[in-house]
Amino acid sequence: MAEPARHQARHFQEELEQLQARLLEMGGAAEEQVRLAIKGLVDRDPPTIERAQSGDQPINRLHIEIDSRCFTLLALFQPMAADLRRIVAAVKINTDLERVGDLAVNIAEAARRYCLHPPVKKLIDIPRMATLAQTMLRDALDAFVRGDVALAQRVLDEDDKLDELKDTIFRDLLDYMLQDASTIEPALDLILVSRHLERIGDHATNVAEDVIFIVSARDVRHHAGEGAS
Amino acid sequence: MAEPARHQARHFQEELEQLQARLLEMGGAAEEQVRLAIKGLVDRDPPTIERAQSGDQPINRLHIEIDSRCFTLLALFQPMAADLRRIVAAVKINTDLERVGDLAVNIAEAARRYCLHPPVKKLIDIPRMATLAQTMLRDALDAFVRGDVALAQRVLDEDDKLDELKDTIFRDLLDYMLQDASTIEPALDLILVSRHLERIGDHATNVAEDVIFIVSARDVRHHAGEGAS
Repeated sequence: MAEPARHQARHFQEELEQLQARLLEMGGAAEEQVRLAIKGLVDRDPPTIERAQSGDQPINRLHIEIDSRCFTLLALFQPMAADLRRIVAAVKINTDLERVGDLAVNIAEAARRYCLHPPVKKLIDIPRMATLAQTMLRDALDAFVRGDVALAQRVLDEDDKLDELKDTIFRDLLDYMLQDASTIEPALDLILVSRHLERIGDHATNVAEDVIFIVSARDVRHHAGEGAS
Repeated sequence: MAEPARHQARHFQEELEQLQARLLEMGGAAEEQVRLAIKGLVDRDPPTIERAQSGDQPINRLHIEIDSRCFTLLALFQPMAADLRRIVAAVKINTDLERVGDLAVNIAEAARRYCLHPPVKKLIDIPRMATLAQTMLRDALDAFVRGDVALAQRVLDEDDKLDELKDTIFRDLLDYMLQDASTIEPALDLILVSRHLERIGDHATNVAEDVIFIVSARDVRHHAGEGAS
């Protein structure tokens, strides 16, 4: 490899690592916002709910920074094959993480309304669902950074568990609503929270699918004897 | 412009037009699937619901084709500035349209369950919401193809109307549920349908925001005296 090309390749790798570090930071911020919203709901604590509801500035700042880094990488280095797929995947993952922040705000809004009524029941399955969704998100981002297809596949498998929990929560709350009309409004908010958590799982699934796409596309190229990048 | 460069620029434009035509085709397919799901719900017609539920093959086929076209354009032509933003936006819009297809399937599933119960009420606001969401989606795609920021801005404004309709539908159905427990289950399905329609509006909004981003980024570049591409 000629010296300037080697220098450029190193520069690209450094920029790519910076980009990945920012995506992990953004994932951490989104996860923390979801954690706060669920904690506020479970503890029925308005200040915590309020923090979750107004805490999306760091995510929005990172969203703009990451988008700009991706376009700079594409324009400056004109990457090919797997590197190109990696950067375009980063643009999509950035969008997914921003949506997770939005969903944390939606959960906080439902939590705020929920606290206006007496509690329907002790919340067990919703925090469990939240923990699962957050783990899926973290694993999906780790899979992206490490190019770990097995971990990405595990995230896809976990999505079934999330769906089961959502269905259990729905049936359980429906019983409460049918037996006592005073629970209808707060139970509806809990159902909405479970749907928001389901969507956070969907975003983790999107990221995991991107990881498999990046790596499997590289494999296809490799088999075709075009192992560029 | 040298002859090969001119030839390449024409080739790029042709490929870009093909890509846009496919995105419009995919948008049309997604819109049609939503229309079928809502028609099946309003008419209480299981065969129509079934068509909406199983009708996402053309969308999935187009999703793969469009993704592949975008990566080919990025790798072959290494576009800069506004063209680069356009192609990356196409990748994102492709994802949005695929999700609209998924949401049409979700609507069809809720419609199928809804038909297992006597109707809660004559459906007026839900078809209205569906028409609005479909129009937003079509306008957002037209705005993308034409680079029409004013039309994209109109899509963003329409989103408030969609939110208002969603809130009206929610309050209306809550009344039914509170007054008659036998409406709880079917009313919940109608609430879910309205949330799915809200999300279709969100996807139209994403597309509109991408259009504004492409064009405004071009303006910023222009003002900075870097009017490339």
